[in-house]
Amino acid sequence: MTKLQLALDFGSREVIKSIVDELKDIIDIVEIGTPLIIKEGLNLVSVIKNTFPNVKLLADLKIMDAGDYEANMAFEAGADIVTVLGAANDQTISAAINESNRRGKQVMVDMIAVSDISNRVTQVNRLGPDYICIHTATDLQKDGQNPLTELQQVSQIITNERIAVAGGIDRQMLQLIRPFQPKIVIIGSSITKKTDWKTAAFQLKQILAEGR
Amino acid sequence: MTKLQLALDFGSREVIKSIVDELKDIIDIVEIGTPLIIKEGLNLVSVIKNTFPNVKLLADLKIMDAGDYEANMAFEAGADIVTVLGAANDQTISAAINESNRRGKQVMVDMIAVSDISNRVTQVNRLGPDYICIHTATDLQKDGQNPLTELQQVSQIITNERIAVAGGIDRQMLQLIRPFQPKIVIIGSSITKKTDWKTAAFQLKQILAEGR
Repeated sequence: MTKLQLALDFGSREVIKSIVDELKDIIDIVEIGTPLIIKEGLNLVSVIKNTFPNVKLLADLKIMDAGDYEANMAFEAGADIVTVLGAANDQTISAAINESNRRGKQVMVDMIAVSDISNRVTQVNRLGPDYICIHTATDLQKDGQNPLTELQQVSQIITNERIAVAGGIDRQMLQLIRPFQPKIVIIGSSITKKTDWKTAAFQLKQILAEGR
Repeated sequence: MTKLQLALDFGSREVIKSIVDELKDIIDIVEIGTPLIIKEGLNLVSVIKNTFPNVKLLADLKIMDAGDYEANMAFEAGADIVTVLGAANDQTISAAINESNRRGKQVMVDMIAVSDISNRVTQVNRLGPDYICIHTATDLQKDGQNPLTELQQVSQIITNERIAVAGGIDRQMLQLIRPFQPKIVIIGSSITKKTDWKTAAFQLKQILAEGR
């Protein structure tokens, strides 16, 4: 079944802890998003890992250079998965993957802002990442864009076991994504901006369960 | 005259403060590098700005999405310049530039890992950033690559007043870069990995001065 990854991009440490505590049995992966990494540094990843050691944690570093060094930093801090940009050089992506393999961790390659998606996914897939993430940037969502077309394209190229999808996904979009059975669906504001996080997460999880 | 930007990527807060204190009269711009941002978050930028309010500070966020939001975070923390990736969507680059204009701050677009450099520099230049940085990734420097060829290409497309150059630049490479009179040259390990930071920085500054 498709896993549900919760993207946390905003909020104080206390709010982040509250959300994780409340949702940890519903959510499969907790993502500490790029804005939070920028704000607080990897220390926040360590705090969440130490508070919730059983939670699978993704650090959204969006690595663009120094693949082994930066991936190592994330894993040292307690991340189970780290992100590298699909726009990065192959050497950077490979260095991060090698580092993750050495430590028994995982790498997600984020295809955000890559224009020739089919070609680049084919190249990146050969490097052997754990996941390749189809991702519509926040700044493109404002223009009404979503990840569905790219998901359709990429589904014809690589196994769904490697596909993650992100970019403003709400319940309606999740219904359209479900038939492609990606390994991971990443959802942020459709949970965090609701007053009742738990019900919102549960309803999304149910949509995924219906698709089995 | 070409400005000298010191890239700080490693070291404890105390070491970083010592370097900045020792070099602040030689260096034109102090960069808090991506690995340090990942490690410590923007709080480190605030600490350096508060300790050395007259130092011009660049936060190397390598923004890939949420251009206005993340640029704003950097400026709020005390950065004078923030970096956005040339690989990002135009909407993201423009959003960061708009935010910097609104606040009287600056944006440097980092062309790291962009393959069709001439074409992308032409596009990015139209968006009106303060600087466009030709940047050879650390992970490519290991294969012997340097920024000189791309600098030659880009010099024929845009004014040198907008060009910054980075990527493993040492004294020898600086001699080759100097004739192109870029606005900013970014140097890290050729200063920070020397035992005598001040002499290293002074010698590099002299090479730039000879080129006037």
